[in-house]
Amino acid sequence: MTRLDDTRSTRPATPPEPEGAAAAVQDSARVDTAWLGEYLLGRWADARKHSRELMRDSAFHRQADLSLAEQRERVFEQMHLLLDRDAVLRAFPTHLGGLDDHGGNIAAFEEIVTADPSLQIKAGVQWGLFGSAVLHLGTAHHHDTLLPGIMNLSVPGAFAMTETGHGSDVASIGTTATFDPETEEFVIDTPFRAAWKDYLGNAAVHGIAAVVFAQLITQGVNHGVHAFYVPIRDDDGFLPGVGGEDDGLKGGLNGIDNGRLHFDHVRVPRESLLDKYGHVDPDGSYTSPIASPGRRFFTMIGTLVQGRVSLDGSAVVASKLALFIAVTYGSERRQFTAADPQREEVILDYQRHQRRLLPRLAQTYAMSFAHEKLLATFDGVFSGEHATDGDRQDLETLAAALKPLSTWAALDILQECREASGGAGFLAENRYTQLRADLDVYATFEGDNTVLLQLVAKRLLTDFGKKFAGSDPRAMAAAVASQVGQASVDRSGLRRLAQAVTDLGQTGRSVGHVRDEESQRQLLTGRVETMIAQIAARLRPASHLSPVAAARLFDENQSELIDAARAHAELLQWEAFTEALPGVEDDATRRILTWLRDLFGLGLIEKDLAWYLIHGRLSTKRATALTDYIDDRLLPRLRPHAVDLVDAFGFAPEHVRAPIASGAERARQDEAAAYYRAQRASGTAPVPEKKPAHH
Amino acid sequence: MTRLDDTRSTRPATPPEPEGAAAAVQDSARVDTAWLGEYLLGRWADARKHSRELMRDSAFHRQADLSLAEQRERVFEQMHLLLDRDAVLRAFPTHLGGLDDHGGNIAAFEEIVTADPSLQIKAGVQWGLFGSAVLHLGTAHHHDTLLPGIMNLSVPGAFAMTETGHGSDVASIGTTATFDPETEEFVIDTPFRAAWKDYLGNAAVHGIAAVVFAQLITQGVNHGVHAFYVPIRDDDGFLPGVGGEDDGLKGGLNGIDNGRLHFDHVRVPRESLLDKYGHVDPDGSYTSPIASPGRRFFTMIGTLVQGRVSLDGSAVVASKLALFIAVTYGSERRQFTAADPQREEVILDYQRHQRRLLPRLAQTYAMSFAHEKLLATFDGVFSGEHATDGDRQDLETLAAALKPLSTWAALDILQECREASGGAGFLAENRYTQLRADLDVYATFEGDNTVLLQLVAKRLLTDFGKKFAGSDPRAMAAAVASQVGQASVDRSGLRRLAQAVTDLGQTGRSVGHVRDEESQRQLLTGRVETMIAQIAARLRPASHLSPVAAARLFDENQSELIDAARAHAELLQWEAFTEALPGVEDDATRRILTWLRDLFGLGLIEKDLAWYLIHGRLSTKRATALTDYIDDRLLPRLRPHAVDLVDAFGFAPEHVRAPIASGAERARQDEAAAYYRAQRASGTAPVPEKKPAHH
Repeated sequence: MTRLDDTRSTRPATPPEPEGAAAAVQDSARVDTAWLGEYLLGRWADARKHSRELMRDSAFHRQADLSLAEQRERVFEQMHLLLDRDAVLRAFPTHLGGLDDHGGNIAAFEEIVTADPSLQIKAGVQWGLFGSAVLHLGTAHHHDTLLPGIMNLSVPGAFAMTETGHGSDVASIGTTATFDPETEEFVIDTPFRAAWKDYLGNAAVHGIAAVVFAQLITQGVNHGVHAFYVPIRDDDGFLPGVGGEDDGLKGGLNGIDNGRLHFDHVRVPRESLLDKYGHVDPDGSYTSPIASPGRRFFTMIGTLVQGRVSLDGSAVVASKLALFIAVTYGSERRQFTAADPQREEVILDYQRHQRRLLPRLAQTYAMSFAHEKLLATFDGVFSGEHATDGDRQDLETLAAALKPLSTWAALDILQECREASGGAGFLAENRYTQLRADLDVYATFEGDNTVLLQLVAKRLLTDFGKKFAGSDPRAMAAAVASQVGQASVDRSGLRRLAQAVTDLGQTGRSVGHVRDEESQRQLLTGRVETMIAQIAARLRPASHLSPVAAARLFDENQSELIDAARAHAELLQWEAFTEALPGVEDDATRRILTWLRDLFGLGLIEKDLAWYLIHGRLSTKRATALTDYIDDRLLPRLRPHAVDLVDAFGFAPEHVRAPIASGAERARQDEAAAYYRAQRASGTAPVPEKKPAHH
Repeated sequence: MTRLDDTRSTRPATPPEPEGAAAAVQDSARVDTAWLGEYLLGRWADARKHSRELMRDSAFHRQADLSLAEQRERVFEQMHLLLDRDAVLRAFPTHLGGLDDHGGNIAAFEEIVTADPSLQIKAGVQWGLFGSAVLHLGTAHHHDTLLPGIMNLSVPGAFAMTETGHGSDVASIGTTATFDPETEEFVIDTPFRAAWKDYLGNAAVHGIAAVVFAQLITQGVNHGVHAFYVPIRDDDGFLPGVGGEDDGLKGGLNGIDNGRLHFDHVRVPRESLLDKYGHVDPDGSYTSPIASPGRRFFTMIGTLVQGRVSLDGSAVVASKLALFIAVTYGSERRQFTAADPQREEVILDYQRHQRRLLPRLAQTYAMSFAHEKLLATFDGVFSGEHATDGDRQDLETLAAALKPLSTWAALDILQECREASGGAGFLAENRYTQLRADLDVYATFEGDNTVLLQLVAKRLLTDFGKKFAGSDPRAMAAAVASQVGQASVDRSGLRRLAQAVTDLGQTGRSVGHVRDEESQRQLLTGRVETMIAQIAARLRPASHLSPVAAARLFDENQSELIDAARAHAELLQWEAFTEALPGVEDDATRRILTWLRDLFGLGLIEKDLAWYLIHGRLSTKRATALTDYIDDRLLPRLRPHAVDLVDAFGFAPEHVRAPIASGAERARQDEAAAYYRAQRASGTAPVPEKKPAHH
């Protein structure tokens, strides 16, 4: 049992006597919560604060135990209220009443999650998906004629991209839009059941129009997926040729009326094509500013990246809220006596409880700083300040990397916090369960997390190979293979392996400086680079194989590709956290945040410890020391600051609304302690049964 | 990249050409699903089948989108229906109309989970907790006067043990029952808010009585926690002195009316004490057949182990159901083209999809066989056939080990299956989300999983130390320390370490037989033993320390203790799976199940690979080979049998009730494929846009 921060090779047998675990490491340093709170709010603090202030109003809060229909109506009414309070139009053009503020729009949107994720996502469907599609895929005519109604909610609409048969693979959707030059109309059709549009918010009840994605066919040629503005309902219900179904009850987000739509040769005017990236003339001839069908498709889809960006940020807000509740409760709740028989232990003083909550707190800080970078990148592209093709690709890769990790983390954090709060955590009033139920789908919508990580991995392979030759596995593998020599990979591996053996043989020198920032960076970076290099090397033969064999080889590496993408995303989070540290002016606050960053970084390394051992990056001695350092140093150091670190999230009681985080638990504990104290003082306390003599 | 089952040291660069991944390993072997289905049903197959047959009836099924009040009433009505159908009284004495069949009772109970976990748990509250408390803690008088009403549901009741202030630490509850010899009554009192009984099923609405756990005080002595039968309501509501609150909406199980109860000096007759383990004479003198207060408490609590046993089994049934749905859907759903541009891939043919589902399928088989052993142990104790103190302790330890793993696994499996089914998995109709919401609380009720694993760890330490000296950490550590020499632990560790270095140095010999059964056993067993020995050695100094320092030392090892308990429980699951193999007569079925067991065992080792590396139990070469063996051999071998392996769970469509597992997906795929085929055949298919010339 060794430590990272000294040279002793054994855990001290006798800990210092009279101090409690927390007392031993407590010092006068305190987090400057007010300052840190502002820092965490980031560049768009004003937008966040405006939104947070609004979300204190109970009119926006989820109401429990409403029927499905009542939930949907309530949320729809709340959307009008959002509009009345100037909460949702920041991203639209100034000449139509917006602010052209893309970063601020997303920041404000993210904060809605504390009120009700259903309200957030329904607002996202209307203004973020339906409205954005018209804004980013349409042209001036569409903006001027369609956006006002969308913005003022007189035209609620659906974003009809996903089909029952195609979710992740949008390029293969079955809905067609065939141009008829006779009437200058497009004919929208869902030719079979799998082509029905599905899971669409606003489709079951409220939507009167939809942006429908379909294969654009003109003059016998399929030009790929394009978006069309299609009215679907009037006061009497579905328009002729349009039909649908209600998706019914879902695992969460039941304030949203998700449903299915199908189209039976529905005719819409030629102008219904949102034609920024593809235009059809009256004679049926097709033109596009982007010659390559593949690049055109990805450009169109790329304009919708804001969904992923905003889910990443919303997952961060929800994680903060969960940890605020669980850490507050954990710092007041007592259970079991340990040292003092007359006073039970605060549960956050137990090592395991710290192990459950504090690394997740560190992760949430990392996610928060990483999201801030993502949002800045997003704003750069959408404001036009940094909007090259490369910038757009970077944005998409960053969003595809961060959204899976944060949405999964939110589910994990909500669940761990719920369990760490025991039976109280299962009561709906304490928030965890409903938030978890609602956020569940964040893992698979706006890009399935597993699929997104594969996109990231392909980008990493591409970057590694310095050139990209399309998404065909063979071509990509060939591109990659030309850049990496198998030998160089192996040599690096062998050199490290030798070092590991040396470490094993010389235990006296094995206690190193794994804990310092540069070591963390090297380990995390080295892992990503090595994983990608190894996969690229294994994919190299694909260029010589048949398509079937190449696909198989690619699939044989699928799992590792996804793991590599995850490692990359974790590195991005770590870098964001690390880059945020120098901006912290107060020494004590920076020191505490540095411990928290260390907990995050070392936690990542500990999670994948086997990899570091196998690849000779850590000796077994160092690996053991790493876990000890987390348990014996970082957790006890951070424990006294845990409450401050969640206070810095800046939630008001109206955001939290969880009785167990209201101080009620402390009041109960104090009342019980006073009762027993008075009983002892008065001499009326019953005595414990005498233990029988040993026999 | 090495393999476990041959001596080649590199992954073959060129896989065999024309075969698909599945075809390459497909052989004529098939699982005998009918036989295996019977085998999985186990010793109480008849009880399970009876219950399963009943649960096909939609009268028992959960109905979506009812109000909270409606759900509660529906479930209460369903309980009467269970009674009418002879589904719930097996465990009660024959002379009162039961069958004295404890194993069969639990087996039948577990199968109710497919209909509605709320119904299951509400039935468990009435007959399994409230009724069992009277049965196991009461005496003949209680049985004859109280059980008939409980059994026939004319007396719905609550099991009032947990308090707002005390969940896991039952011994410290605040409710008192003070004997008044003047009137020969007990005075039941909840002296402060934290002492209110909480989270009690049947308390909010339906319960008219409760078994109340309270500190028994007589003649000024507190004899510890005992159970009292207390009427709480009549037709006019709460009885005088009794009050309560509704726990309201929960994360799941909303068919149950959980609530709080408080008592203000409520008087009940002396005979209300369920006095099997503690009796108070009219003069107030206390007697007990168990002299030690500590042993008496654990004996009383131990009679309630069936809750944990039944949750373990219910988690297994829910996991089977989730995997049936996800594997069925995964074998029909297609997305993205890989090899064949005209036919999309079945998603279960992707490596990552196999990685997500097949290890969880293996885990579920292991959990199923392990549960069968637990149930037999339970039946042995409760039938009196094997009911020594040692048997009871073994039962409690086994239940405390298995219940945490299976209930956590069920949540993980339900979530992975839900995500692996994409947006369709989020629809309530496809079952995952509601089951997950309901089973969430299984992780913290009937013993918080984390607390249960600590109990297991303490038992392991005790066994290791060969003698038990109470639950005081110092005494226990002393007992343990006397049995283990630090030197012996270190020597063993060093010997293994030397072997690891040898392995590293001689890579040519490093590809071993990790995959065989005996190696798996040695690795898994060695891990548990070593972890316990190491912790025991570290706790040894506790005997010389102050209580405060000893408690601190214990807490510093808390996380590792829990990890050790988990490793022990995993070993039990692995052993149960392994012991089940020889009973499989059909060679092909046994071979396939052996692969599945290997996947489970190697998966466990892979999960904790860093530990095996650090402790020199595996060389880095072998560690790498292990992952390759899972990815390259086991998953492809098992893929063709995945559907058979879930078919063997034997669910009828009425149990499954998930549209995505109904064949609808296959029908949609076929319809779409036929459409495109016809289009191509007729020559009407639009041609893809020509790619522009490269420029």
